[in-house]
Amino acid sequence: MTESFEQLWAELAAIGKDPDSGGYHRGGWTPTEREATAWFLDQCATRGLTVESDGIGNLVAWWEPGEEIPGTIGGARGARLPGVVTGSHLDSVIDGGAFDGPLGVVSALSAVDRLRAEGFVPSVPIGVGAFVEEEGSRFGMPCLGSRIATGVLTPEKALALQDRAGVSLADALKDNGVDLDRVGPSSLLARMGTFVELHVEQGRALTAPVGVASSIWPHGRFRFTFTGEANHAGTTLMEDRHDPMLTYAMTALAANKQARLAGARATFGRLAVEPNGTNAVPSRVTAWLDARAATAEVLESLLVAITRQATERAERDGTQVEMVPESVSPIVDFQPDLRNRLSAVLGDAPVLPTGAGHDAGVFSDAGIPTAMLFVRNPTGISHSPAENAEMDDCLAGVEALATVLKDLAR
Amino acid sequence: MTESFEQLWAELAAIGKDPDSGGYHRGGWTPTEREATAWFLDQCATRGLTVESDGIGNLVAWWEPGEEIPGTIGGARGARLPGVVTGSHLDSVIDGGAFDGPLGVVSALSAVDRLRAEGFVPSVPIGVGAFVEEEGSRFGMPCLGSRIATGVLTPEKALALQDRAGVSLADALKDNGVDLDRVGPSSLLARMGTFVELHVEQGRALTAPVGVASSIWPHGRFRFTFTGEANHAGTTLMEDRHDPMLTYAMTALAANKQARLAGARATFGRLAVEPNGTNAVPSRVTAWLDARAATAEVLESLLVAITRQATERAERDGTQVEMVPESVSPIVDFQPDLRNRLSAVLGDAPVLPTGAGHDAGVFSDAGIPTAMLFVRNPTGISHSPAENAEMDDCLAGVEALATVLKDLAR
Repeated sequence: MTESFEQLWAELAAIGKDPDSGGYHRGGWTPTEREATAWFLDQCATRGLTVESDGIGNLVAWWEPGEEIPGTIGGARGARLPGVVTGSHLDSVIDGGAFDGPLGVVSALSAVDRLRAEGFVPSVPIGVGAFVEEEGSRFGMPCLGSRIATGVLTPEKALALQDRAGVSLADALKDNGVDLDRVGPSSLLARMGTFVELHVEQGRALTAPVGVASSIWPHGRFRFTFTGEANHAGTTLMEDRHDPMLTYAMTALAANKQARLAGARATFGRLAVEPNGTNAVPSRVTAWLDARAATAEVLESLLVAITRQATERAERDGTQVEMVPESVSPIVDFQPDLRNRLSAVLGDAPVLPTGAGHDAGVFSDAGIPTAMLFVRNPTGISHSPAENAEMDDCLAGVEALATVLKDLAR
Repeated sequence: MTESFEQLWAELAAIGKDPDSGGYHRGGWTPTEREATAWFLDQCATRGLTVESDGIGNLVAWWEPGEEIPGTIGGARGARLPGVVTGSHLDSVIDGGAFDGPLGVVSALSAVDRLRAEGFVPSVPIGVGAFVEEEGSRFGMPCLGSRIATGVLTPEKALALQDRAGVSLADALKDNGVDLDRVGPSSLLARMGTFVELHVEQGRALTAPVGVASSIWPHGRFRFTFTGEANHAGTTLMEDRHDPMLTYAMTALAANKQARLAGARATFGRLAVEPNGTNAVPSRVTAWLDARAATAEVLESLLVAITRQATERAERDGTQVEMVPESVSPIVDFQPDLRNRLSAVLGDAPVLPTGAGHDAGVFSDAGIPTAMLFVRNPTGISHSPAENAEMDDCLAGVEALATVLKDLAR
């Protein structure tokens, strides 16, 4: 007898919960993320699922239908039937919520439990996936695991990524006993016939308990470096300064205003100030812009407008500004046939876009038929300890996922 | 034969110089600051100066005139003659310049060398001082050593101060073998009959090689805490956000504008963002304002204007703002008789105010007759690796300091 969804949820939610904020710090290959992963592997073992991993540590736990193609038993993995994979990720943003990622993993386990309890026999394997460093909160690259798996991020570029403490991904992996030579395009994908990711909705766009994704907005991370001249905060005349903090401040306000005008999203949520001393005019402010819009054209014109205002202000301040795109993701249009099929089988569930990137987007771009289910978020708050979904809606999500899996694996 | 000023300067400037920036990171009780202090003690030993230290680690190295009061030889230190103390500090801001602090210490040693070479015999002791953590770059409290020495900062408050890594001053002192019971008002002050600090000027206010300080502007550090709500940067509607970064950005621009209007100085040079993730609307931005003005009234009205604009913007953003003064220093008017005497003995050297705080201000407030000499700064740049003074001006500073010491100790 496996545990109920509520029990599974309570167990996972307890792992690494910050006692002060109530949030999570599950960056990739950190102790709390590893602990959550160990819990997942334990649950897979309890269910007798066959866990496969790839070089970077993405996991898929298979419920094999016992229908190997004749003559290939014990043969190459790729020869086995492709299946339907569901799941999500276990890592979190810095001080993130309980739902973003884990809800999809726990719902996947629970949906498998429900199908087995019903006596459902799938005609193709059903896989429960957990993909690493989806948030990019440690190494700055969102969907790190799926990007490496699909080959859009080369091992060379990936392994050179550094966290804020200067630890490279290569070193973090070595510390976790990973063979770096195995990092690269993933054997797991050969069996990923369809991918369905269940995820908490992250705005307030969904008013029904469960919905289906239409698309992911084009989005990117853009690093702005504002450079001026360090100086004494007490003695330097205001007119003698080249203060990059002012250029940054004006750019942050401009980004907000331009995003509102464009019906888009722009956020400066991460900053590094040098030397960051109270009595010194800064020499440099590095600021990361997260920008998203419904179309590539709107995103592009948003960036042009923000960069132009930053540059104009830099001229006034006697500072320099440089903008470098760190990652840019084009629009993801989930396969219309698949999303319509899911909406129909769920009784005309609403279909809606999202501004958030997901591993589902990376897999969709790689040509894998992919869909997403959303569970209602009553406040729209996400990437925050206050992120929430009602238990009834979560249970509706599990039921919807089970229904979808039954339809796809029948 | 002691070394020339140029040799001393080159030796000290080599200690802890950052090979990348060319600046210094000599926070209190850090390895590079300790190394600079060891160099100073070595120089004092070479000269046969008698080093006295107090509980927190302030140092005065005495050139005793050999004129102990009859009957008190070997008696209580306080019974010995009060003297003329010069010197400055060896610590730096984060990535600071070579001159701020060390110029006063090296010039003091060099002035003693010059007076001895001339055969001058002082009638009162001449002390060379080095006072700890003047910049406050590690524990956030400027003039830490002199404030503890004069008793304006209690040992209880001081020892509880923490650096950015969460290390308390108490623990830092224990790690350096300091007896915490000795930290408190300093026995050194009983013999500080007069204090003269030579310092590099830090604006562009001084056009002669050497000048004399009239006053230190009232100034303070004010911690602004902007609190909002963490959220997902991609999915949260712009109008649903409570983004404290926007409130901060507007406040930084307002501070700059208000300071210009008031002929004052206002700087946001230090920030802490939480959670500081690229794809999260921040929950909190903590920002430290350094504000200075010619009078207490102007400083007060500057703060009122900045705080009012911050509060108004917070209402628009749906955020909260809280302002806490961390340290506030009233105006320091250096003793008019003393500063006029110094200006006269230096051939009518210019007399000018400064926006920078100094240990000299703390000693002046404690009732010790105190003066400052400034050495010209051609660019006005300070608290930066680019901080500079011409060697000829530095040598003029040594000569002026020697002249002043001769006058005061004759």
